[in-house]
Amino acid sequence: MPQITRDTHGVFIIAATPFTQDGAIDTESLRRLIDFYLSHGVDGMTILGIMGEANKMTPEERRGIIDLVMQRVGDLPVVVGVSDAGLANLSDLGRYAMDRGAVGLMVAPAPGPAREDRIEGYIHAVAGALPDVPLCYQDFPLVTGLPVSPALIRRLSDDLPQMVMLKHEDWPGLNKITALRRMEQDNQRERLSILCGNGGLFLPLELARGADGAMTGFAYPEALVRTVALHRDGRVEEAEDLFDAYLPIVRLEHQPGAGLAVRKHILMRRGAIESPATRAPGPSLTAADVAEINRLMDRLERRLGQ
Amino acid sequence: MPQITRDTHGVFIIAATPFTQDGAIDTESLRRLIDFYLSHGVDGMTILGIMGEANKMTPEERRGIIDLVMQRVGDLPVVVGVSDAGLANLSDLGRYAMDRGAVGLMVAPAPGPAREDRIEGYIHAVAGALPDVPLCYQDFPLVTGLPVSPALIRRLSDDLPQMVMLKHEDWPGLNKITALRRMEQDNQRERLSILCGNGGLFLPLELARGADGAMTGFAYPEALVRTVALHRDGRVEEAEDLFDAYLPIVRLEHQPGAGLAVRKHILMRRGAIESPATRAPGPSLTAADVAEINRLMDRLERRLGQ
Amino acid sequence: MPQITRDTHGVFIIAATPFTQDGAIDTESLRRLIDFYLSHGVDGMTILGIMGEANKMTPEERRGIIDLVMQRVGDLPVVVGVSDAGLANLSDLGRYAMDRGAVGLMVAPAPGPAREDRIEGYIHAVAGALPDVPLCYQDFPLVTGLPVSPALIRRLSDDLPQMVMLKHEDWPGLNKITALRRMEQDNQRERLSILCGNGGLFLPLELARGADGAMTGFAYPEALVRTVALHRDGRVEEAEDLFDAYLPIVRLEHQPGAGLAVRKHILMRRGAIESPATRAPGPSLTAADVAEINRLMDRLERRLGQ
Amino acid sequence: MPQITRDTHGVFIIAATPFTQDGAIDTESLRRLIDFYLSHGVDGMTILGIMGEANKMTPEERRGIIDLVMQRVGDLPVVVGVSDAGLANLSDLGRYAMDRGAVGLMVAPAPGPAREDRIEGYIHAVAGALPDVPLCYQDFPLVTGLPVSPALIRRLSDDLPQMVMLKHEDWPGLNKITALRRMEQDNQRERLSILCGNGGLFLPLELARGADGAMTGFAYPEALVRTVALHRDGRVEEAEDLFDAYLPIVRLEHQPGAGLAVRKHILMRRGAIESPATRAPGPSLTAADVAEINRLMDRLERRLGQ
Repeated sequence: MPQITRDTHGVFIIAATPFTQDGAIDTESLRRLIDFYLSHGVDGMTILGIMGEANKMTPEERRGIIDLVMQRVGDLPVVVGVSDAGLANLSDLGRYAMDRGAVGLMVAPAPGPAREDRIEGYIHAVAGALPDVPLCYQDFPLVTGLPVSPALIRRLSDDLPQMVMLKHEDWPGLNKITALRRMEQDNQRERLSILCGNGGLFLPLELARGADGAMTGFAYPEALVRTVALHRDGRVEEAEDLFDAYLPIVRLEHQPGAGLAVRKHILMRRGAIESPATRAPGPSLTAADVAEINRLMDRLERRLGQ
Repeated sequence: MPQITRDTHGVFIIAATPFTQDGAIDTESLRRLIDFYLSHGVDGMTILGIMGEANKMTPEERRGIIDLVMQRVGDLPVVVGVSDAGLANLSDLGRYAMDRGAVGLMVAPAPGPAREDRIEGYIHAVAGALPDVPLCYQDFPLVTGLPVSPALIRRLSDDLPQMVMLKHEDWPGLNKITALRRMEQDNQRERLSILCGNGGLFLPLELARGADGAMTGFAYPEALVRTVALHRDGRVEEAEDLFDAYLPIVRLEHQPGAGLAVRKHILMRRGAIESPATRAPGPSLTAADVAEINRLMDRLERRLGQ
Repeated sequence: MPQITRDTHGVFIIAATPFTQDGAIDTESLRRLIDFYLSHGVDGMTILGIMGEANKMTPEERRGIIDLVMQRVGDLPVVVGVSDAGLANLSDLGRYAMDRGAVGLMVAPAPGPAREDRIEGYIHAVAGALPDVPLCYQDFPLVTGLPVSPALIRRLSDDLPQMVMLKHEDWPGLNKITALRRMEQDNQRERLSILCGNGGLFLPLELARGADGAMTGFAYPEALVRTVALHRDGRVEEAEDLFDAYLPIVRLEHQPGAGLAVRKHILMRRGAIESPATRAPGPSLTAADVAEINRLMDRLERRLGQ
Repeated sequence: MPQITRDTHGVFIIAATPFTQDGAIDTESLRRLIDFYLSHGVDGMTILGIMGEANKMTPEERRGIIDLVMQRVGDLPVVVGVSDAGLANLSDLGRYAMDRGAVGLMVAPAPGPAREDRIEGYIHAVAGALPDVPLCYQDFPLVTGLPVSPALIRRLSDDLPQMVMLKHEDWPGLNKITALRRMEQDNQRERLSILCGNGGLFLPLELARGADGAMTGFAYPEALVRTVALHRDGRVEEAEDLFDAYLPIVRLEHQPGAGLAVRKHILMRRGAIESPATRAPGPSLTAADVAEINRLMDRLERRLGQ
C-alpha cells in the first residue's frame, strides 16, 4: 500500500466509531459504516481521531479497530490517529498500525503551554520515536488550545522529511493555507499535502486557496467527494453550489462536542450504523435535537431533488 | 422611549463602528450606516459591543458615538454595550447612555476564573451600580471564556428584576434555549427575552426553540429581519429557505476575529460605510479574502435573483 | 481496610511513579519509594494521580501499579486516581482498585466547557458507575481549567453520599475552605474531609482554615506529617516554623510541569528512587536546575540542623 | 533622565494605586506610597501595570497618575505600563508618559490566539507606533494566556533596537533566563535587560540565572532591594537567607487575583497607604484573611528581629 506523501489528495473520511447502546464497540456496524464510506467513493479513511472517540478506548480496543478496518477496506488507504498522553503508547500504537498496513499516522501536539518551542520539540520527539513513518500534523486549536504559526508548520515540514501532511483546521484558517502555499513557492520548499477538517465548513474556499482535499467526517461523504471532484475539474461554481446545499447540516455537525451526536444520528438514519450512541462521557441528543436534524435532512433531500 | 422588557422581540442589529483608514471614527459613515440599518427594517440597534470595537475607544469617543446614534435613530430603540474592566467606568457609561435615551444596557461577565459564583457576584455588582436599568446578559463563551449553566442565567433573571434579556451566543446553544424556556414553564417564572447572536448562524433553529429574535451584526440585516418576520408568521420553512441562502456568508462572518473585517468589507461594498478599516489591533483582509468575499456576494445575488 | 470517610484526616502522600531511564516502570524503586513514604509516617497514599503520570500508562500498567502498591503498603490506606477520558475505563479501573483493597477513588472533572451543570452531571455519572464507592473530588483548576464554586462542591457532597472527600487545590483557595466549613455549620450538613494539595504551599494556613490534612506529593513527606501533627496538637506556630523551612523547595516543586522533575530528583538524591526520569513527554532538568536544587537541599539541611 | 537600556538593573518597584473606600484615586496616599518606595531605596518605579489596576482607570486618570508620580519621584526612573485594547490609546498614553519624563514603556501582547506570529506582529505594530521609545516586554502568560518561546523574545530584541528590556514572569521560567543569556553569548547578540516579576517568588534563583534585578510589587520593597544588592556583592547565600524570611508572605501575594488585596493590606498596615481598597471588580479580604496576614507579618518581624 503506497503511503501518504506530500502529494496526497482527495477525501480522507474521518471514520466515526459505532457503539452499541451499552457502550461496546459495534463491530457489525463498523463494517457497515466502512462499506458505506467505500460506496461513496472516498479516497481514504482516517480512524481513531477525536471524532472516532479514540481517547475513550483501551489500547486493545484501538488495535481491534485497526485490525477490523484494515481487513475491511481492501485497497483503501487508512491513516491512523495516534495522539496519546504518553509517547511510548503513541509509538506502540503507531507501529502496530503501520505493521497492519496503515499509510500514515496523525498526531496533534500534546497538551501543555502554547509555546511554539514546546510544540516543535514534541513533534520532533514523535518523529524520532517513529522514524520513517509518514506523519500528518493535526492543527486543531479549537480543541487542543494550541494555535501555531504557519512558520512553525513550514519548519516542521522542512526539518522532518516524514512530516508530509497537514490536517488543517485552524479557524479562521483560509489565509493559513495561502501563507503555506506561498512559502512553498517563495522558498522552493517541498510542498505539504493539505487536507481540511472543520467538518468541511469552508471546503470549497479551502480548495480554491490551494488545499488538496478534505479530511473530515461529514455524514454525507458524497458531498465531500463530489465537491473535491468538481473542483479538480475546474467546475468551481458547481462545486460550491453543491456544497452550499449541505451547509445547513455541516453547520450543525461543526458544533464543538454536540456535533458528533448529530453526525452519528444522521449516519444511523442513513442506515450506516445501528445506534447513534457515543461513549460516556459523550454528547447525546434531545428529542428537540432529533426532530431538528430529521427536518434538516428532509429539507436537504428536497433541495437535492429539485 | 419604552425600555427593553422581558417580552422584547425582533431584530436588534449589532452596529459596526466605521473608521477612516487612519483610525478616526468616521461619523459621516456612521450616519450612513444607521440609515442603512433603518432602511432594512431592524427593530432596534445595539452599539458599542465587541463587534463595535468599543474596547478600542476612549470614554469620550464612546459617549460621542452614543450622542450621534441617539440623534440619528429617531424612535428606534438602542441598547448600549457597557462592558469595561472597571465597574465605575461601566456604570458611568451606562448612566450616560440611559440619560441619552438608551433602552437598556448589555453586559458580559468580567474576565477572571469561570467559577459561577464569581460571575454571579459580578452581575449582581453591575446591577447594584445601575439600579432600575434594564440589563441584557451577553452569554458569549467563545470570546469571554466564561460558559455558564442555564440555571445561573435563570437565577440572575429571578433575583434581578432588571435582568430582562439574554443575548444568547453560547455554542452549541440550541438546548440552552430549550432548557431556559422549560424552566420558565415548569417553575412559572417570568420569561426572559432571548435574542440570538453568533452572527445568526443558527437563527431559524433558535427561533424554533423559542428565541424572540436576533441581536447580531450580519451585514445583510434584511436577512435577519425577514427570517424573523417569516417565522413569526408561521412560515417556518420559508424562513429557513431564505436564511439558507445567506449561510455561505454568515459562515465567513462567524469566524472569530476575522469575521469583523468580512462584515465591514460587505458593508462598504453595499454602500453603507466608506472604509472597511478596523482599529488596530484589528483584522484586515488580504487580496485573496477580498476576491473570495466578492465572489460569495455575487453568488448570493444570483441565488436571490432566481 | 476501612474506607475513606467524611472524617478522614492526616497526610495522604501523592506517590510518584519511578521509571527507568528508558521509560519502563521501575518496580524495585517503587517498592523502595513506598518504604520511604511508610518510614516517614504518612497516614495514607494516593497513587495514579497527575503527578503519578497515570495518563501515560496503559491500563495493564496501572493495574500492575495497584497490585504492587497494595502488596507493599500493608495496612496503609490507598486512594487510587482513576481520571480517564472514558467513563467505562474509569469505572473498570476503579472497580479493580477497590477489589484490591483501595479505600477510595479520586476523580477530577472530565475536560470540556467549564459550565458547572456539565461538571455536576459528569460527577453524577461517575458516581452512578461506581455505586457505593467512596470518592474524592480533585479540585485543581490550574491543571483542569475547570474552577467550580463552593456551592457546587457542597451540592455534590449533599446529593452523593459517597462523595466524602475533597482534594483541595484551587488557587487562591483559602477562602474556599472557610466557605465550605461555614456551609457545613450553617446548614447542618455532613462535613467533607478536606485534604490539601498544591504541593503543600499553603498547608499551615489551610489547616488553620479547617482542612483535615494534606494530599500532596512533596519530596519531604516528613515535613507534611510533622506540620499536620504539630497543628493537631495546637502547636500552630511551631507547625508554621517547621513548614517555612521547606518553603524554598515547596516553591520549586509547585511549578506547573517542571515541578515533577524537581520532586523526582530530590527523591533520587534522598535514596528513595533510582532515577529521576519522567515518562515522555515529561519534564527533565538542565544542569543548572540540578545544581540549584542540590544547593537548596543543602541549605535546607543546614537550616534544619541549626 | 536617562532612559532604560539593555543594561538597566536593580529594583523597579511595581507601584500599587491607592484608592479610597469609595473608589476614588487617593492622591495623598499615592504621594505617601511613592515616598515609602523611595525611602526603601528602589532603583526605579513601574506604574500603571496590572497590579496598578490601570485597566480600571479612565485615560484622564492614568494621565493624572503619571503627572503626580513624575512630580513626586524626583530623579527616580519611571517605567509606564501602557497595555490597552486599542493601539491608538496605547500610543497616546505612551507618548504622554515619555513627554512627562518616563524612561520607558511596558507592554504585554494583546489578547487573541497564542500564535507567535500574531504576537510578533503586534509588538512590531506597537514599536512602529512609538518609534525610538524604549520598550519593556511583559512576559506574563499566567495572566495573558500567551506563553512565548525564548526564540521569539530574542527575535523581538534583535529586530527592534528599542526592545531593550524583558519583564520576566513566565512560570516556570528559570530556564528561560538561562536560555536567553545563552543565546546572547552564542550568537553575540546584544543583551536584554531582564527584570523579574512573579512577586519575587524566585528572585534569588533568577539572579543566579543571570537576571538583572526585579520588577515586581512586593509590599516589602526593602527585601527586593537588599536581596539584589547582596547578590551583586557576591553574597549569594546571604541574599537567599534574607529573601527566604519573606517567602511566607511572597507566597500569599503571589496568588492570582487575591494577591493584590494582600499587598494593599500590608502597605496600609505599614503606613504607606490609607486604605486597602481595590477598585471594583477587585479582590477584597475576609476577616480570616486579615487575621492571617497580620499573623504572618508579626511572624516576619519576629524572625527578622532574631
